[in-house]
Amino acid sequence: MLKLFYSPGSCAVASHIALEEAGAPYETVRLDFGAGEQRKPAYLAINPKGRVPALATDRGILTETPAILAFIAQSFPQARLAPLDDPFAFGRVQAFNSYLCATVHVAHAHRIRGYRWVDADDEAALAAMKRKVPQSVGECFELIEREMFAGPWVTGDSYTICDPYLFTVASWLEADGVDPARFPKVRDHRQRMSERPAVKKALAAERS
Amino acid sequence: MLKLFYSPGSCAVASHIALEEAGAPYETVRLDFGAGEQRKPAYLAINPKGRVPALATDRGILTETPAILAFIAQSFPQARLAPLDDPFAFGRVQAFNSYLCATVHVAHAHRIRGYRWVDADDEAALAAMKRKVPQSVGECFELIEREMFAGPWVTGDSYTICDPYLFTVASWLEADGVDPARFPKVRDHRQRMSERPAVKKALAAERS
Repeated sequence: MLKLFYSPGSCAVASHIALEEAGAPYETVRLDFGAGEQRKPAYLAINPKGRVPALATDRGILTETPAILAFIAQSFPQARLAPLDDPFAFGRVQAFNSYLCATVHVAHAHRIRGYRWVDADDEAALAAMKRKVPQSVGECFELIEREMFAGPWVTGDSYTICDPYLFTVASWLEADGVDPARFPKVRDHRQRMSERPAVKKALAAERS
Repeated sequence: MLKLFYSPGSCAVASHIALEEAGAPYETVRLDFGAGEQRKPAYLAINPKGRVPALATDRGILTETPAILAFIAQSFPQARLAPLDDPFAFGRVQAFNSYLCATVHVAHAHRIRGYRWVDADDEAALAAMKRKVPQSVGECFELIEREMFAGPWVTGDSYTICDPYLFTVASWLEADGVDPARFPKVRDHRQRMSERPAVKKALAAERS
């Protein structure tokens, strides 16, 4: 059975929702980031990166949200979570998820994980990074709203693995100091996502 | 015909090499980053992100290196650039490329593109970011060398779309202040890659 390693509030919820949407048999393992569990030997033996998500399969471990989401879509094709037989359409799905992963999530991470890119005791540099987050994350969502979001779902009429990932990253807007009202399409999407049974179930499990 | 928008020395060379390896019909368009061509209206109409690579296809534009590489592998299956019929093996390929994109390239980018994450006139914060690059990039390559590189190619016996991408990112090591001698597998891979006809051709074209 698939096993998803996650921490509440992290980007792992995108994979959690996708597993639900796919009707996949899975279980979850919660890591306590507050206790630094992700950097302890037991977890580093599973994922040497010390991050979540990690998905344990009967073949081994998969990491990185875009890779896990595509794996779920390919492993449960009947759920139609990606245009698997169309390299261009699949490429658009992947480009969107790669942007969330490498640009939007990275911009967001400068708010509280700036120590990845400057010395952890450089308070001034950490504060400088934090100050820019509302602007850098805001610009990402301007681009999504204006150029990338087709509607009603991210890529158009079909719900795909882009949708739980956008929902996840968009749920951080308020904490990043960005007003969601600036992005009506993204805000409406977030609302519709929050009403889906798979989303409710994944969020309830993570909050329980 | 496919058209790759690139700038010399950028991560776009990974896609350039993959197009060569695939035997794809393609042409290239060079952007002059020194002249800020990537932020001018003509290019923003192609790629509103103002970045490279962008791949123009007869269906539209694709961006993001991991997405473009998977698209090339799927569009030219006879070149066998990815394990297309095995979701787990394909997921491992994608996880590797996602790590290069969202973690390694991002760490590297803090050396000269720190203005993305702090105010462009905050010299102290920019310098703080730059100082950390040898450590952060070095740690990424320690993980690649120790945990991720199967050998002789990234994922094992088969050359995949991971190989040109690793080659590309590893070519920045010296400029990032990291000694490649610390990573014998990565260094040997870089050497073997540089001898491949597709790599020679792509590099020669970008340097011409």
